[in-house]
Amino acid sequence: MLPPVSGIVTLLTDFGQSDPYVGLMHGMIRREHRRADVVDFCHGVPPQNLIVAELFNRSAVGRFPSGTVHVAVVDPGVGTSRRIVGVVAHDCYWFAPDNGLLTSLFPTAREVREVDLRAVELEAESRTFHGRDLFAPLAGRLSSGRYGFRAVGPTLAEPVLLSDLTGHRIVHIDGFGNLISNVTASELAQSGPSGVCISGVAVPVVGTYADVAEGEPLALVNSFDLLEIAVHAGDARLVLGVDVGEPVALT
Amino acid sequence: MLPPVSGIVTLLTDFGQSDPYVGLMHGMIRREHRRADVVDFCHGVPPQNLIVAELFNRSAVGRFPSGTVHVAVVDPGVGTSRRIVGVVAHDCYWFAPDNGLLTSLFPTAREVREVDLRAVELEAESRTFHGRDLFAPLAGRLSSGRYGFRAVGPTLAEPVLLSDLTGHRIVHIDGFGNLISNVTASELAQSGPSGVCISGVAVPVVGTYADVAEGEPLALVNSFDLLEIAVHAGDARLVLGVDVGEPVALT
Amino acid sequence: MLPPVSGIVTLLTDFGQSDPYVGLMHGMIRREHRRADVVDFCHGVPPQNLIVAELFNRSAVGRFPSGTVHVAVVDPGVGTSRRIVGVVAHDCYWFAPDNGLLTSLFPTAREVREVDLRAVELEAESRTFHGRDLFAPLAGRLSSGRYGFRAVGPTLAEPVLLSDLTGHRIVHIDGFGNLISNVTASELAQSGPSGVCISGVAVPVVGTYADVAEGEPLALVNSFDLLEIAVHAGDARLVLGVDVGEPVALT
Repeated sequence: MLPPVSGIVTLLTDFGQSDPYVGLMHGMIRREHRRADVVDFCHGVPPQNLIVAELFNRSAVGRFPSGTVHVAVVDPGVGTSRRIVGVVAHDCYWFAPDNGLLTSLFPTAREVREVDLRAVELEAESRTFHGRDLFAPLAGRLSSGRYGFRAVGPTLAEPVLLSDLTGHRIVHIDGFGNLISNVTASELAQSGPSGVCISGVAVPVVGTYADVAEGEPLALVNSFDLLEIAVHAGDARLVLGVDVGEPVALT
Repeated sequence: MLPPVSGIVTLLTDFGQSDPYVGLMHGMIRREHRRADVVDFCHGVPPQNLIVAELFNRSAVGRFPSGTVHVAVVDPGVGTSRRIVGVVAHDCYWFAPDNGLLTSLFPTAREVREVDLRAVELEAESRTFHGRDLFAPLAGRLSSGRYGFRAVGPTLAEPVLLSDLTGHRIVHIDGFGNLISNVTASELAQSGPSGVCISGVAVPVVGTYADVAEGEPLALVNSFDLLEIAVHAGDARLVLGVDVGEPVALT
Repeated sequence: MLPPVSGIVTLLTDFGQSDPYVGLMHGMIRREHRRADVVDFCHGVPPQNLIVAELFNRSAVGRFPSGTVHVAVVDPGVGTSRRIVGVVAHDCYWFAPDNGLLTSLFPTAREVREVDLRAVELEAESRTFHGRDLFAPLAGRLSSGRYGFRAVGPTLAEPVLLSDLTGHRIVHIDGFGNLISNVTASELAQSGPSGVCISGVAVPVVGTYADVAEGEPLALVNSFDLLEIAVHAGDARLVLGVDVGEPVALT
């Protein structure tokens, strides 16, 4: 049996918060489900950046009540014939454009379906804002129990996958200036380095920020279970002068 | 009969999100209506920009459940004797300073009233933050049904209107760098141009972003039903090097 | 008797909104308290700035229903042995790292306790994100009534206090470019100045922005009950060319 819906809908987008795009999704969800509990999970994905969107989306696993409907709209192909994919995984429901955003969920997914707009009786009013026209009403109806997950459309055998990134590198810089890499905690544990090297600087691997002096760089496994390079009480982006894409070497 | 309240309150402001101004409105609404469902519609209106505030406000029409209380606080005249206006339109309630922010709602409004602070038993504690002191408690009470819309004050015959902008131009640039003009979909349909010209660049009118190659400029009717100039998978502000106010010609 | 919980949890952090850190706290609160009403009070505290965090936190006093659980996470010492402090004050519950963030609440607090993680059966999964691992579940449980405030741990006799700032100065610049000082309304009333001087410019003390001509600087007691220097319909930071830390003289 699939998990009962919790009534919670989360939104992950690259819409930012300077425009009413997110607010319009809030309204459209509530038009379908007056009591929906809508959470702004994050709207700060860099425009059309699927690598970061996938990373942020994955971080929600296990952090919300079971039966939560997670909606992610980072959608370079809006208005084209790209599909919408729905997944049941980790006791939650996940919807996104079929562009690889949900890649890490597929291996353990219980179900993967393609949303059939006729089956769910939805039609996009615009060709540029499927978040408002399709994803929001879909999430509203699912989260209210108006229809069940299996009603959204047929099984999708081969969803689009993100290509593996080649090489260890910085994939995101957070609001504190912390450099987040694509090196996983398990990769780090396997090679067991005493330090990492970034931009010619050797950085020790420690347990938390305060394990080095203020102003000093450090590396640790962060709350995403990824290797992060930071500066204690400082901004690693500024101190190390690096940007997204910078290679990271385990030493 | 006026529409029953939905319990939803939306907030549209130019407060940004770096300060607790919005959070304080959330608290004051809940002090009057413990179960209010408060939606941050948008807080990214450029400071005191009534053109953009009116555009964003208008985009909410038809996108929320009937009986929603929409509050817009972009208020260059805070602390002066400018009035507060309340409107019933499109099955919702709308409140704003009487400065033109609700201009597009008046032609089809069922009621337009001036808020009488004595009638609603409100007094501003500060002369600089009527969002917290007046609009939030007013919206809380209205949305809870404590008093009905007609109790807020007398009919207002001549609300302040925004002056029409003269000329077609860019009025807003969204977070993706898309250039949003004041050319409406119906104006565009009437003149039926094959393209537009902006900053000396000829741009084709198409249906969605992916109708041109990546990196190429395009024009389309966007989800606000306005002419938008964009760049496929790019940032039109950067590519075209234009800013708000730039003229747009239909060709 | 302590105030019954309202079910509301507010969040004040320096996490910004470009990352999912806040969204993860939303999820973890709801895992413990499915019906929690979670308010993003403000996430724009400058990184690790306890002066601004304390100022913002204080502004919430009296603005939320009684029984609200206020959580503030600005936490330069995350991962070290710094304590977590809980306070009952102004009919609400307040939790923060024991780093001075709650300083202004202690003099009138009914209770001040140290959170004992074993007593509340919490253990941090990460050493870098106690907001997600500790503060969020703690607030969820408190706000649901699962346990009462007195169960969180023993009385704390000597919480950490923020040092007094020496001298009158600008402590924060808001999103409008208004300069917010540490001069309180009562200090201002005592010395009764006719004006203030900042960066060599004499500025009159008035009642609201519109008391001077557009483009002109002014000083007033703002909605935080602090002296603020602003420019009518303008941006004081730009007009006066000053930054946080600038001295202010009462004249």
